[in-house]
Amino acid sequence: MTDTLAVADGLVLTPAFDVVEADVLVDADAGTVIEVGPDLAAAADETLDAAGGLVIPGLVNAHCHAAMTLLRGYADDEPLDTWLREHVWPVEAALTPDDIRAGTELALVELIRSGVTAFADMYFAVEEVAAAVEAAGIRARLGHGVVTVGKDDEAARADLEESFAVAERLDGAADGRVRTAVMPHSLTTVADDLLAETADRARDADVPIHFHLNETPDEVAPIVDEHGVRPSAHADELGLLTDSTFVAHGVHTDPSEFDVLAERGTSVVHCPASNMKLASGMAPVQAMLDAGVPVALGTDGAASNNDLDLFDELRDAAMLGKLAADDAAAVDAETAFRMATAGGAEALGIDAGRIAAGANADLAVVDLDAPHLTPAHDLVSHLVYAVRGSDVRHTVCDGRVVMRDRDVLAFDEAAVRERAQEHAVALVARAEE
Amino acid sequence: MTDTLAVADGLVLTPAFDVVEADVLVDADAGTVIEVGPDLAAAADETLDAAGGLVIPGLVNAHCHAAMTLLRGYADDEPLDTWLREHVWPVEAALTPDDIRAGTELALVELIRSGVTAFADMYFAVEEVAAAVEAAGIRARLGHGVVTVGKDDEAARADLEESFAVAERLDGAADGRVRTAVMPHSLTTVADDLLAETADRARDADVPIHFHLNETPDEVAPIVDEHGVRPSAHADELGLLTDSTFVAHGVHTDPSEFDVLAERGTSVVHCPASNMKLASGMAPVQAMLDAGVPVALGTDGAASNNDLDLFDELRDAAMLGKLAADDAAAVDAETAFRMATAGGAEALGIDAGRIAAGANADLAVVDLDAPHLTPAHDLVSHLVYAVRGSDVRHTVCDGRVVMRDRDVLAFDEAAVRERAQEHAVALVARAEE
Repeated sequence: MTDTLAVADGLVLTPAFDVVEADVLVDADAGTVIEVGPDLAAAADETLDAAGGLVIPGLVNAHCHAAMTLLRGYADDEPLDTWLREHVWPVEAALTPDDIRAGTELALVELIRSGVTAFADMYFAVEEVAAAVEAAGIRARLGHGVVTVGKDDEAARADLEESFAVAERLDGAADGRVRTAVMPHSLTTVADDLLAETADRARDADVPIHFHLNETPDEVAPIVDEHGVRPSAHADELGLLTDSTFVAHGVHTDPSEFDVLAERGTSVVHCPASNMKLASGMAPVQAMLDAGVPVALGTDGAASNNDLDLFDELRDAAMLGKLAADDAAAVDAETAFRMATAGGAEALGIDAGRIAAGANADLAVVDLDAPHLTPAHDLVSHLVYAVRGSDVRHTVCDGRVVMRDRDVLAFDEAAVRERAQEHAVALVARAEE
Repeated sequence: MTDTLAVADGLVLTPAFDVVEADVLVDADAGTVIEVGPDLAAAADETLDAAGGLVIPGLVNAHCHAAMTLLRGYADDEPLDTWLREHVWPVEAALTPDDIRAGTELALVELIRSGVTAFADMYFAVEEVAAAVEAAGIRARLGHGVVTVGKDDEAARADLEESFAVAERLDGAADGRVRTAVMPHSLTTVADDLLAETADRARDADVPIHFHLNETPDEVAPIVDEHGVRPSAHADELGLLTDSTFVAHGVHTDPSEFDVLAERGTSVVHCPASNMKLASGMAPVQAMLDAGVPVALGTDGAASNNDLDLFDELRDAAMLGKLAADDAAAVDAETAFRMATAGGAEALGIDAGRIAAGANADLAVVDLDAPHLTPAHDLVSHLVYAVRGSDVRHTVCDGRVVMRDRDVLAFDEAAVRERAQEHAVALVARAEE
C-alpha cells in the first residue's frame, strides 16, 4: 500500500495562477496534498513523472448526463423539439440499468482521459452510475432526475421519493467520493407543490439541489406568464435557491435575476457547447460573474456536445463569453479556468479546484511538449485556448492515480468501448421498433 | 521511387457522404487518385495502413496567417483595438524573414498533424512561406498582404508591386503545390484607386484575389458612409469580386450583399473561432449558403484562435451557425464538413476536397478507435462534433505521405518547436524594447 505519491519534476499551476517548478507531495491514504515545493520526490513511496508537463487542478464537469454517451451522434442537427420528442425521449424510455452502466463507464473513461476528476450527474438508475464511479476512482455528485409533468399523482410521488431515496442511500459511497443531490429536472417539468416539498425536505436533510434553469425561452415564458416573476425569483419563492444549490445553463437569465442568485450563493453551470448546438442562446457569463453569481462549467450530455472533453468548454466559455459581452476582454483565460476548477468545486461542494496543501489531491498533468502549445508565452492562455483533452498525460483523484500515461487504470478501455457500442445499437433498435 | 500508394483496409468517406469499406489507390507521381474500391492494396508499391480508421479528404484551411503561431497566447483577452495597436502590430513590425520561416514551419507541423492538406496564407516574406510549404509537402495559395493606409504614395506603390511580384514569381512553385494570389488586406486599409488597379491587373494576369471583408462593424461603416453602398457592392464596383476571389470572415455581411457574392461566385471563408475570440460577431453562414454563396472554413492566425486545428472550426462552424440562425438544424454536420473540404478547394481553386478517381490525392486517415468516437451511430457527425486533430493518424498530399503514424516526415518536430520558441521570445523582446 502506497502512502505517499509525488507528482514530480513538472511545472505547477498555483491557486494565484503563477506557474512554478515544484513537486506535489500527496498523502495517498488521506487523499490530500501534503506540500507543494522543490525536491519532494525522493522521500515518496510512488512517483508520477510530470517532467515537461504542467500540473493543474483536476477539472470539474458540473453538469452532465453521463450515460448519454450512448446517444453520441444520434439524431444530430434536428430542431430541438423534434430531437427531444422523436429521438431522445423515446430512446431514454427504452434505457435499461445495464445500458446506463455501459454508457456511464464510457463517459468515465472519456472524463478521466481529459483530466476531469469530479462531475455532477443527473440521470436514472443512479446505483449503476455510482457503481461505475466507485470503480473509476473519481468523484461525483449524483442524483435521480425527477420529471412529473404528464405523470399521475402516484407516479409523480414515486419519482420524487426515488430522488430522495437515492440521495440518502448513496451519499458517501465509494469512500466518500460519491455525494448526492436531489435533482428536479426544471421549473416547468416538475409541479410547483413538489418543487416546494423538494426544497423543504432537502433543507431538512441537508441535501443539495440541482436543476435546469433558464435553458431556453420555453423555460422562461410559462413561469413569467403564470407567476409574474422571472424563473430565479420563482425558484427562490419555492425555497430552491441556497448556497448548496447549483443550476444548469442559465442561458436566458435576465440581469434582474442576478442579485438573488448571487445573494443565495447559487452556482450557475454554464454549458456553452450544448447551448450552441441546441441553439439555446448565449449565457451572460461575464455579466453574471460581475454581479457576484458563482459560475461553473459543464458539458451537458454527449448527445448535445458531442464529447465530454471539458477543455472544449474552457475554450467555448472564453470565446462565447466574449461574443455574448461584445467585448474581446470578457471571460479571460484565468476566469474561464477558474470556472472549470474552483468554480466547479464550489458548485459541487467539494474541497478541490486548487493545488495546495490540505486540499483534495485531485489533479491532472498536461503535456506541454506539443506544436500547438508552442511557444510558451502564457500557459494559462494555452490551457483555455489550445490544450485539448488528449494532451492530458496523467489524472489523479483522491490521492490515487486513475490514469497513468493515458492508460485509464480502472477499466479495460477496449472492452468498455465494445460494450457501449453494443448497448447503443441495441438500445436504438429497441427505441425505433 | 514509389509509383503507387494504397491507403488500405479503412473506411472511406465518399463525395456523397457515404461510408464504404474500400482501399484508395493513388498514383504517387501524378499525385492523383486512381481508384477507390476493394482489394487494391496487393498491387501497390507502398501501403498505408488505414485499418480502424476513416479516410477523408484532406481539410482545407482557407484563411490563415501561418507565421502568427509565434504570437500564440501573446496578449490574449485584450480589447480588439488595444490588441492590434499595442501588441500585434508592434510585433509584426519587428518580424524578420527568419521569424516568418520559423513560425510558418511550426504552423505546417500543426496543420499536417490535424489533417490539413491545403491552406491559404496572407502574410509577408512570402518566399520564406513558400520554401516552408515546399519542404512540408502540402499545398498553399500564398500572397503578400498589402496595407496602404498610413503610407506615402511611394511606399503604398511598393507594397502593391510586391504583392504582384510575389504572385508572379512564386506561382507554380513546389511542383505546382504553391499557387498565389494578390492580397489587399481589406477595403478600409487599402486605398480605393489601388484596389481598382489590383482588380484590373489581377484579371489581366489571371491571378486570384483574397482580402478581408466585413470582419467587424468598423470595416462596414466607413464604406457605407463614404460610398452609400454595402462593402460587397463597393468591392464589386471596384471589380474585386470574381469566381477566383475569396474573402475572409464575412461576419457582418448583410442579406442585401448575398446576391452579388453568389452571382460572382466569390467564396466567403468563415473563421468562427477568430470571430468569437475577437468578439467580431456571428457570420450568417446558413443564410449565405441558402443564398448560393460558396462558403469555406479558416482558422485565421493562431493569435486569434489559438491553434490551427481545423477540426475545431468544423465544430465551431456547426455550433455557431446554429446560434446565428437560431435553429438547431442549421449548418448540419455534412454542410460543415463540405465547407472544410470541397468548399475550401473551391475557394483556393484546387481539384481536391473529395476522394474520387482523378482528383488530387490529398487525404487524411482519422482513427476511430477512441472513447470519444464511440458509439458509431454517424461518422460524419463525429467528424464535425467529436473528432479532434489529434485523432488524425496519417496525412497524404499530392500522392505522397506527409505524416505517417503521427510522425511529420519533412520536419524534425522537436527542432521546429525549439526554433519557434527561440524566435518568439526574441521577437517579443525586440518589439517590447
